[in-house]
Amino acid sequence: MNEIPYKVYLSENEIPTAWYNLRSAMVNKPAPLLNPGTHQPMKAEELAPVFCDDLIAQELDNDTEYFPIPEEVLSFYKMYRPSPFVRAYFLEKALDTPAHIYYKFEGNNTSGSHKLNSAIAQAYYAKKQGLKGVTTETGAGQWGTALSMACSYFGLDCKVYMVKVSYEQKPFRREVMRVYGADVTPSPSMSTNIGRKILEEFPGTTGSLGCAISEAVEVAVSTPGYRYVLGSVLNQVLLHQSVIGLEAEAALKKLGVTPDIIIGCAGGGSNLGGLIAPFMRDKIRGKLDCRIVAVEPMSCPSFTRGTYAYDFCDTGMVCPLAKMYTLGSSFIPAPNHAGGLRYHGMSSVLSQLYDDGLMEAVAVPQTEVFKAAELFARVEGTLPAPESSHAIKVAIDEALKCKETGEAKNIVFGLTGTGYFDLVAYEKFHNGTMDDYRPTDEDLAVSLAKLPKID
Amino acid sequence: MNEIPYKVYLSENEIPTAWYNLRSAMVNKPAPLLNPGTHQPMKAEELAPVFCDDLIAQELDNDTEYFPIPEEVLSFYKMYRPSPFVRAYFLEKALDTPAHIYYKFEGNNTSGSHKLNSAIAQAYYAKKQGLKGVTTETGAGQWGTALSMACSYFGLDCKVYMVKVSYEQKPFRREVMRVYGADVTPSPSMSTNIGRKILEEFPGTTGSLGCAISEAVEVAVSTPGYRYVLGSVLNQVLLHQSVIGLEAEAALKKLGVTPDIIIGCAGGGSNLGGLIAPFMRDKIRGKLDCRIVAVEPMSCPSFTRGTYAYDFCDTGMVCPLAKMYTLGSSFIPAPNHAGGLRYHGMSSVLSQLYDDGLMEAVAVPQTEVFKAAELFARVEGTLPAPESSHAIKVAIDEALKCKETGEAKNIVFGLTGTGYFDLVAYEKFHNGTMDDYRPTDEDLAVSLAKLPKID
Repeated sequence: MNEIPYKVYLSENEIPTAWYNLRSAMVNKPAPLLNPGTHQPMKAEELAPVFCDDLIAQELDNDTEYFPIPEEVLSFYKMYRPSPFVRAYFLEKALDTPAHIYYKFEGNNTSGSHKLNSAIAQAYYAKKQGLKGVTTETGAGQWGTALSMACSYFGLDCKVYMVKVSYEQKPFRREVMRVYGADVTPSPSMSTNIGRKILEEFPGTTGSLGCAISEAVEVAVSTPGYRYVLGSVLNQVLLHQSVIGLEAEAALKKLGVTPDIIIGCAGGGSNLGGLIAPFMRDKIRGKLDCRIVAVEPMSCPSFTRGTYAYDFCDTGMVCPLAKMYTLGSSFIPAPNHAGGLRYHGMSSVLSQLYDDGLMEAVAVPQTEVFKAAELFARVEGTLPAPESSHAIKVAIDEALKCKETGEAKNIVFGLTGTGYFDLVAYEKFHNGTMDDYRPTDEDLAVSLAKLPKID
Repeated sequence: MNEIPYKVYLSENEIPTAWYNLRSAMVNKPAPLLNPGTHQPMKAEELAPVFCDDLIAQELDNDTEYFPIPEEVLSFYKMYRPSPFVRAYFLEKALDTPAHIYYKFEGNNTSGSHKLNSAIAQAYYAKKQGLKGVTTETGAGQWGTALSMACSYFGLDCKVYMVKVSYEQKPFRREVMRVYGADVTPSPSMSTNIGRKILEEFPGTTGSLGCAISEAVEVAVSTPGYRYVLGSVLNQVLLHQSVIGLEAEAALKKLGVTPDIIIGCAGGGSNLGGLIAPFMRDKIRGKLDCRIVAVEPMSCPSFTRGTYAYDFCDTGMVCPLAKMYTLGSSFIPAPNHAGGLRYHGMSSVLSQLYDDGLMEAVAVPQTEVFKAAELFARVEGTLPAPESSHAIKVAIDEALKCKETGEAKNIVFGLTGTGYFDLVAYEKFHNGTMDDYRPTDEDLAVSLAKLPKID
């Protein structure tokens, strides 16, 4: 009998009742969003046509430590939270490592990922404001699915601009969104000015996240009773995702375990920012000696090969400027199979923490990620999302290092979701037709040269 | 704060350590399997070329109350068990019913259904016997996926004959099986005598479960070191699935709740037989006053329109004869979207209980099932499998009856799995192209006329 169980389920009354705002613990605060015209920090009233009022307040507040989770959101959380915290005994055995591996599993809901944590919060504030609906973009489809579920729950309209290549390759994701009543449009589309402009310029384009964001924002600001919501990157999203880290912290405390390494995949940064929130706080305050590692795809390496600078969040350049590690908003990510990690920039919060040396980052090639994913599926049972598998890959690497040194380190990683809608990617992996594309220095120089000039 | 939580998770040491054999409580035992040639009860040695030895012992044993769950199987169960037992507060609210609705959710594993409970047991006994591998058939793909996972865990070869129409319509199911290293062949195939014969006779056939069973059995008996395993119908499978009912019983006890109605979908009967095991025992013994309801599709209504008689389990007529409610082994089920319920017969255990008046049965039309499924997805969050949605449909009907009468009945149903691989069906439902086919009396008369004559 193992002393530590395979799964630690907290009870429902151990679901956090407040989100933790990591910014409140940061010595160097994340840089503010800038108005793309004036280059001055965006004020709440400037953001109001795009975002919901309460979410703007959360976005701009670097000081408040805790935001209470509204009762309606807490009630929804009880559908699928607390999420499982798992000791990866089977993986440890397969690797023959002295390391102790744990993962926080956020895929135990129909959206298949952690995205639901913020979707339900954002839908709640939209409803509270008396809005008719929200618009958004989705790439891999996880965020769109999560938002559809959340809007269905609160009776809000949900207009999703789905990157065209995903719309065509992932009809099932689209169909799940329809189950929840969402209106899904392939992007770029003829329904917006920016969509028509992009289609005119690049008639054969299969779309990008940056372009879908531009379309969703345009529709939100031009349709009465609508606002735009975003599934990652923003401070508010990291705030909501802190439930991941708070539950992980509670589970580790219950087990009496102190983490040595915390690992998460990083696209826009929402999962990682949420997972590490309480641990990074303790690290900043000198109370926890722990490595924190962001894992990104070699094909879209914002941290490891990007520049820390102000940049546009979208292709259409209609959004505020954010200071972040970026590859340039004109960078066209390779069509890799972790759609959730194909974003040119990175959360301002995580960018600042990385710049301050409080976090590490590593970029990994795609086929190695799928090797790790398949091993994980076979021994731990759960078929992981390609995004999550980036964290698995590095957790395995760290566990194998422990095998060499004989150290019994405590490794914690975020298993953000399941791969049930990513089987085209697994098929390519099995057929040996998966590539390990990485951008050349010249590719990056071109897109980085187009960064906006800020005084 | 609700007194009863949304989810009851038992702890890992509350996973049952023995399977419960419902046959031991039955006054009228299920009829024995017959040798198709001699019409005499099958002996263990006659079954040995087809099935694993320990599984045959379980199959033939009507008396032993409990079979201990082997340590290796228990360890695997800890990957995903205890499975959630959920109070459907959101559904109750949506229906505005005084009824209390509970469901046991078996979809929280990558196979997406309860099938894994028996797959891992069967793979264990095959490994224990020193076999090289196993063969099986799969329709919807849930059983094939579950068996692939189980075989991967024990390092066994796994040859899956997948009904051709599913193989072609569900490439993702096939791909999941490949993740777990299974060898998947569309059935009928040219790799077996029976497959070649069927293809010669019906060149355009898209296959059937009965045909795939015949192929898998042929390969098992003709390949040294292989045996055949089956995911439903058999006594041994119901035995393994009793973990569902035992955990549900433990959860209800913990809550102090006595069920008034227990509802499960019924194809071959494995889920229903497992779910009801301890409750049916108590009902037989007069200790529980509870309705037990089997739900089947109108397109394949074994209980409600079939005959209780000996019949072949497979199209090729190579398997033993089983006494069951059957539509006739030549009955060709309509291509409905609950592949797991498209079987012409029903477990001998359940057939006997139904014949003894201990169970009810109801047949429901397909579009009503999908309406219930979509409502459930929207309010309870989880996208249900079409099979499971049959039980949801009747649970909703019963809850609405309670609304009329004002009764606060305790309704428990089995949510056997998730619908992530069934989105073609949901798409048809959304597009309004789903039909409610039911066989005519003439259709049934034709297939029932072909039942074997037993003295």
